[in-house]
Amino acid sequence: MISVEDALAHLFALAKPLATETIGLSEANGRVLANPVAATRDQPPFSASAMDGYAVAPEGVVPGASYTVIGEAAAGHAFDGSVSAGEAVRIFTGAPVPNGAGHVVIQEDVDRTDQIITVSDRLGRGTNIRPSGGDFKVGQTIESPKILRPNDIALLAAMNVAEVTVTRKPKVAIMATGDELVMPGEAPGPDQIIASNSFGLQAMLRDAGCEARLLPIARDSKSSLKTAFSLVDDADLVITIGGASVGDHDLVGDVAQDLGMQRSFYKIAMRPGKPLMAGKLANGAMMIGLPGNPVSAMVCGQVFVNPVVRTMLGLKDALPEQQTAELAHDLAPNGPRQHYMRARVDNEKISVFANQDSSLLTVLSSANALLVAPPNSEAMPKGTAVRYIPI
Amino acid sequence: MISVEDALAHLFALAKPLATETIGLSEANGRVLANPVAATRDQPPFSASAMDGYAVAPEGVVPGASYTVIGEAAAGHAFDGSVSAGEAVRIFTGAPVPNGAGHVVIQEDVDRTDQIITVSDRLGRGTNIRPSGGDFKVGQTIESPKILRPNDIALLAAMNVAEVTVTRKPKVAIMATGDELVMPGEAPGPDQIIASNSFGLQAMLRDAGCEARLLPIARDSKSSLKTAFSLVDDADLVITIGGASVGDHDLVGDVAQDLGMQRSFYKIAMRPGKPLMAGKLANGAMMIGLPGNPVSAMVCGQVFVNPVVRTMLGLKDALPEQQTAELAHDLAPNGPRQHYMRARVDNEKISVFANQDSSLLTVLSSANALLVAPPNSEAMPKGTAVRYIPI
Repeated sequence: MISVEDALAHLFALAKPLATETIGLSEANGRVLANPVAATRDQPPFSASAMDGYAVAPEGVVPGASYTVIGEAAAGHAFDGSVSAGEAVRIFTGAPVPNGAGHVVIQEDVDRTDQIITVSDRLGRGTNIRPSGGDFKVGQTIESPKILRPNDIALLAAMNVAEVTVTRKPKVAIMATGDELVMPGEAPGPDQIIASNSFGLQAMLRDAGCEARLLPIARDSKSSLKTAFSLVDDADLVITIGGASVGDHDLVGDVAQDLGMQRSFYKIAMRPGKPLMAGKLANGAMMIGLPGNPVSAMVCGQVFVNPVVRTMLGLKDALPEQQTAELAHDLAPNGPRQHYMRARVDNEKISVFANQDSSLLTVLSSANALLVAPPNSEAMPKGTAVRYIPI
Repeated sequence: MISVEDALAHLFALAKPLATETIGLSEANGRVLANPVAATRDQPPFSASAMDGYAVAPEGVVPGASYTVIGEAAAGHAFDGSVSAGEAVRIFTGAPVPNGAGHVVIQEDVDRTDQIITVSDRLGRGTNIRPSGGDFKVGQTIESPKILRPNDIALLAAMNVAEVTVTRKPKVAIMATGDELVMPGEAPGPDQIIASNSFGLQAMLRDAGCEARLLPIARDSKSSLKTAFSLVDDADLVITIGGASVGDHDLVGDVAQDLGMQRSFYKIAMRPGKPLMAGKLANGAMMIGLPGNPVSAMVCGQVFVNPVVRTMLGLKDALPEQQTAELAHDLAPNGPRQHYMRARVDNEKISVFANQDSSLLTVLSSANALLVAPPNSEAMPKGTAVRYIPI
């Protein structure tokens, strides 16, 4: 058996960043920026008023000072002239500050009579002017790789970046295998169950930024598996579920090898989900064979498949993000395999579920965390800080 | 000025849960389950083997016990008969346990010669049988409302639920307003800037589960605003950005009122983003008017618009999730307004950015948290636990 870290190293060696594509800003949220982007302008492009008020020369702004209003500056409409001592320009938020002005007295801080304003005793601090280039200057970059989030989209728009170059979405084909499986909505025979992992993994992979589709269920025969493999088409990643152990009916590895896969098989020192297969198919697609137990498949999706996807997307930090919480109860010592325990974090305290059997989807669905218990970790009392993967 | 809580209460009074629609399970990830769903079967539907091995009667399984192999049970293929004392059935993971059997001895724990197996000294604990209905029983429900996540999708599939009833996606129309704005990719005049909030909000609202589209930019004139409002079509929610203050050029409220809006205007005791407008348009759509400063608009999106969307989606916990972190530095006392400070959480310590000006998208894009400083909160030393909204 190899460690989780060693298994991930093998997978990372097989996974390569994909090509890029250029898309409109409106479609870029959640995508991975592939190249640094530079601002094409300063922001603000001019000294701008931060408030509604009156722009005056910077000197001598004290309570009692008076000014004659000589014009107006609104957002999108600069005042066409200069401001001299004793003069003021009515100005609105976002408007360019006129030449000669260096202070905006907010409207609440003046008394106005016709064209004369007088600074009141309420005069606040600050000039209420945003300097040109105060947010960013032309050429300032957003570094890549980076998952673009809504606030980045707003910043890119402000930089006048209408299109961005992102890593294209990995295409993933998901193949459930087994004579016991039928699709949701079908009437299962007495010995059969419903294919569930494939739907869960499809959702997980879409969340991770993939185009993920389901192949027809492959049966436990070489001919059925060959048919399913013939449908992977242009997938970058093929995920098989089940049939990847060493049982007499576990034919996935044999068939993939017949189809030219450079096969690696790992027994990984982890719970749940010991067996994992990985390799490259003859068409260049990467393949990962997951165990068939529902919880094992979903946990291995988190621990192994998502990091592979992040590598394909060109991200540097491919491992699942871990957080820390305090144990809400004592925890028994762990055995020799790293245990990803189904758990719930509530109010920053973590509790593991009593039944950790790898078949229990009800437990997984109630969990929001995988507590990571390292191999051979000792018993830990309530209150110990432990690491977990949010799910 | 009213408090954030009071403003939210006004908004919640205007927001109503939308109708439902029935969709295929493959499209249900991230959607809000609208009605409870009941399992249509037990899982497993039969007592199932958890391992590859040999099914035998439950009594007398000790090292040295011998059995004659009389048949095989594989996943999807039950053994057609019963197991009596002294008999064993070769069984594989997921297969139905034959009548009469009550223990699966795993294959690593037996020695086999032809059709005879003998239990070895390695015999482990447990029966390696998953009881019928051990994960869930027919009629067991998934409660609503609930945002469906990948593990729920897997569970629903296992329950043989092929379609689910979810709240339909809120349709949101976003209207940026202002003479100073141009679209990304255009050549702005010397007094102009690029519309950015609308793109950021569109991304945020899509993440929140909406269909969000951009209306043409409305200029600071009643006729232009009327044209933009005429395009809101069947939107459930209209978001305007800018023009919602009390300046001479802030016409959004007037125009919306002309179009039949029951208008409420709130000055909210918060930073950034004091002014907020809300109401119902004549066609029944809810409207929220956000301030025009980029950071104010995005923060108000988090604090006010997302909770409205969650209410429309039928969720009970509509407020943004808050978490706790320790201050990485001393924090100055807060003024009378609740301050949503742009901050970064790294390794569970939170640091606020030095410059909190509401125009700085670079700061917002670097932030991953909004530290929530309550009104008039006192100075807090480094190490104090504070609340924040992850962004």
